[in-house]
Amino acid sequence: MPVRLDTRDPAFKDRFAALLGAKREAAADVEAAVRAIVDDVRAHGDAALVALTEKFDRLDLGAAGAAALRVTSAEIAAAVAACDPKDIEALTFARDRIEAYHRRQLPGDQRFTDALGVELGYRWTPVEAAGLYVPGGTAAYPSSVLMNAVPAKVAGVARLVMVVPAPGGKLAPLVLAAAHLSGVDEIYRVGGAQAVAALAYGTDTIAPVDKIVGPGNAYVAAAKRIVFGKVGIDMIAGPSEVLIIADATAHPDWIAADLLAQAEHDTAAQSILITTDAALAAAVETAVDAQLATLPREKIAGASWRDHGAVILVETLDQAVGLADQVAAEHLELAVADPAPLADKIRHAGAIFVGHHTPEAIGDYVAGSNHVLPTARSARFSSGLGVLDFMKRTSLLRCGPEQLAALGPAAVTLAEAEGLGAHARSVSLRLSSKSPVESSGAE
Amino acid sequence: MPVRLDTRDPAFKDRFAALLGAKREAAADVEAAVRAIVDDVRAHGDAALVALTEKFDRLDLGAAGAAALRVTSAEIAAAVAACDPKDIEALTFARDRIEAYHRRQLPGDQRFTDALGVELGYRWTPVEAAGLYVPGGTAAYPSSVLMNAVPAKVAGVARLVMVVPAPGGKLAPLVLAAAHLSGVDEIYRVGGAQAVAALAYGTDTIAPVDKIVGPGNAYVAAAKRIVFGKVGIDMIAGPSEVLIIADATAHPDWIAADLLAQAEHDTAAQSILITTDAALAAAVETAVDAQLATLPREKIAGASWRDHGAVILVETLDQAVGLADQVAAEHLELAVADPAPLADKIRHAGAIFVGHHTPEAIGDYVAGSNHVLPTARSARFSSGLGVLDFMKRTSLLRCGPEQLAALGPAAVTLAEAEGLGAHARSVSLRLSSKSPVESSGAE
Repeated sequence: MPVRLDTRDPAFKDRFAALLGAKREAAADVEAAVRAIVDDVRAHGDAALVALTEKFDRLDLGAAGAAALRVTSAEIAAAVAACDPKDIEALTFARDRIEAYHRRQLPGDQRFTDALGVELGYRWTPVEAAGLYVPGGTAAYPSSVLMNAVPAKVAGVARLVMVVPAPGGKLAPLVLAAAHLSGVDEIYRVGGAQAVAALAYGTDTIAPVDKIVGPGNAYVAAAKRIVFGKVGIDMIAGPSEVLIIADATAHPDWIAADLLAQAEHDTAAQSILITTDAALAAAVETAVDAQLATLPREKIAGASWRDHGAVILVETLDQAVGLADQVAAEHLELAVADPAPLADKIRHAGAIFVGHHTPEAIGDYVAGSNHVLPTARSARFSSGLGVLDFMKRTSLLRCGPEQLAALGPAAVTLAEAEGLGAHARSVSLRLSSKSPVESSGAE
Repeated sequence: MPVRLDTRDPAFKDRFAALLGAKREAAADVEAAVRAIVDDVRAHGDAALVALTEKFDRLDLGAAGAAALRVTSAEIAAAVAACDPKDIEALTFARDRIEAYHRRQLPGDQRFTDALGVELGYRWTPVEAAGLYVPGGTAAYPSSVLMNAVPAKVAGVARLVMVVPAPGGKLAPLVLAAAHLSGVDEIYRVGGAQAVAALAYGTDTIAPVDKIVGPGNAYVAAAKRIVFGKVGIDMIAGPSEVLIIADATAHPDWIAADLLAQAEHDTAAQSILITTDAALAAAVETAVDAQLATLPREKIAGASWRDHGAVILVETLDQAVGLADQVAAEHLELAVADPAPLADKIRHAGAIFVGHHTPEAIGDYVAGSNHVLPTARSARFSSGLGVLDFMKRTSLLRCGPEQLAALGPAAVTLAEAEGLGAHARSVSLRLSSKSPVESSGAE
């Protein structure tokens, strides 16, 4: 049974805080185990990868050893051929839309000359090599491959490397097809902390990358946290969540399906309904129970709804906005008669799905926007995955003698105030001595 | 004596790789100690802050306890009054230029309707509350306060909180003045891992923030790594570095001063000169030795230059570009006759200082660009601090019935391929059942 809250309840504030603060995941303490794996891969490279893959994925790479980690182009072609053409068509449709959307995220460079004649600006360039972690088994989602790989390629990443565990040797054909469609350059059948370590530090078989993205279990998350700094990483994803704000115009069956779409991901997922309409709340709860019975992933979705679901009654939609900003949900659906003004008021959410005909699942697959979004209230400070995650900004500065004369004295003052004599000298020497030859060609 | 390399040396590649791979910092293993501090602050809040501040900063907060952590507006006013007016003027000049530069980084929102009529887009909003860590003692740089605080305020951060240790009760007046000038809203005299924990989890005295930025020692860095996820953090900064590419037109004294400006930061700092001109290399080395003798921070700068400095002879400037991209330096100076084409070729650098009259120290203080830049080769995947670090992007999606009809079938196909029945149902229910009332007002 989901939690039921009502803002008119005097204890509402505390009960809502408890809902927000409730731990949905047991914090597995895998840190020490992961450190040992990372150190092993750093020290022993391919040999460690082969041994760990045999141990954790029950995959014997045979005489070829680490060379067999690479998924061959023949295997990829065979996988694509094995897929249902309808699935390939849908993936291609999704890829094209994701690509079109993300092209709009390509940032512009800035170059300008200020009033003093100082040339300033910055320039965006792609990360050279990126690694994409893809979970194996039931969590191997081809749509996630597209969502991670396409923005990297739009950014201009020249070398995109995918790692995916192949438990017992098995790889999902549609996952390989998605990688192929989105331009992944290399695929290795290796997973877990050992795959993250290989991407960060490199082995003879897997050259290191500069940035690692993609979801994974507690081991993968811990490994990403450990290698952060050596390489860039994306966010550490927590269990998924949806918050739906609905009024009396919402369709109970649709809302129930949306709540369950979130719940079916994971028993730790969270689905919350906030509504101004008590009758809708009751109808949705009834519909959830009815739909659960015919759901393939009934057990997972049922546990999530029972343990983490919530139905919150509010008096006004403005109250709902205030609560939604506190939740800072990964996904926020606005299933109300007039959703646009409500969307404008929201400050913290990973993605907003506006209106009755925009179920979150559309965003998961084919809208074009990214489905990798900040979880666990991190939409307060972070964004969904995008092109900028695969680019970096270099600032540019150019002074001539006049500009240095204009800026220099203040720099010398501050350097001296900070006790940095060589800083001051590097400016003052140039203010007093004769200039060397420099061409002043326009850039 | 700095390392001397020459690309014509058959062993160059290995020697250059050794230079790149050399550890400049002893990795202090403070993880366990920091975890204990963070847990202490989470569990005991203000009481832990008071006890830890007394222990680490030798600061007895007296009867007022945690209430005395807040630096009062009277103290700030007194600090500003105690500063040399010339310093305040230089800081104000710097602040204005930093603000003007960073205003150009404010990102634009996107709203568009695609060919199918799907409304898509994204919107940037500021982080609500940010924390700025400022080191105490000799590393308390007022310029760093500006560089961290001004972009936050330009982004629109409503609540900007500064924490700074006050060893023995002492705070640098110019640091408080810089905070005041850049619009910091709250200042607390607390430092170390305990300050980071307070910012992340909150105490009765210090309300929690959403993002923590700013440099710090190994304890601060470890604490940031631990709280990452609960809040956002900026990069984990390593020791600073400069790479200077110079040709025969460069002035040896100027280059020597620039190398030493980097070296004086820290014995672990690194200054590298790459030049096509052997005579310049020799002259620079001589000038470094001569300038060292009169430098206030001679010992620090001398140790850095001796232990981590390098002079690399190359045959062509294009070779220099290739090496610079491998170094991916925090600061890259181009002290050559024709620097603009060289700047265009560089792919990886935190900031590029173009031409003889652009010493890096100008960028440290008054150019307007940010001096918080990616260290330790992380310019391969990350950017200097900027306005985007204090903002986050929310994606927006809106379909009507026709758009859902166009996109829905592919979404259902993919949801079914991924075994996510509720996802498929949340779309298919809307394709088959009658629509609820929804206004279609323009957004």
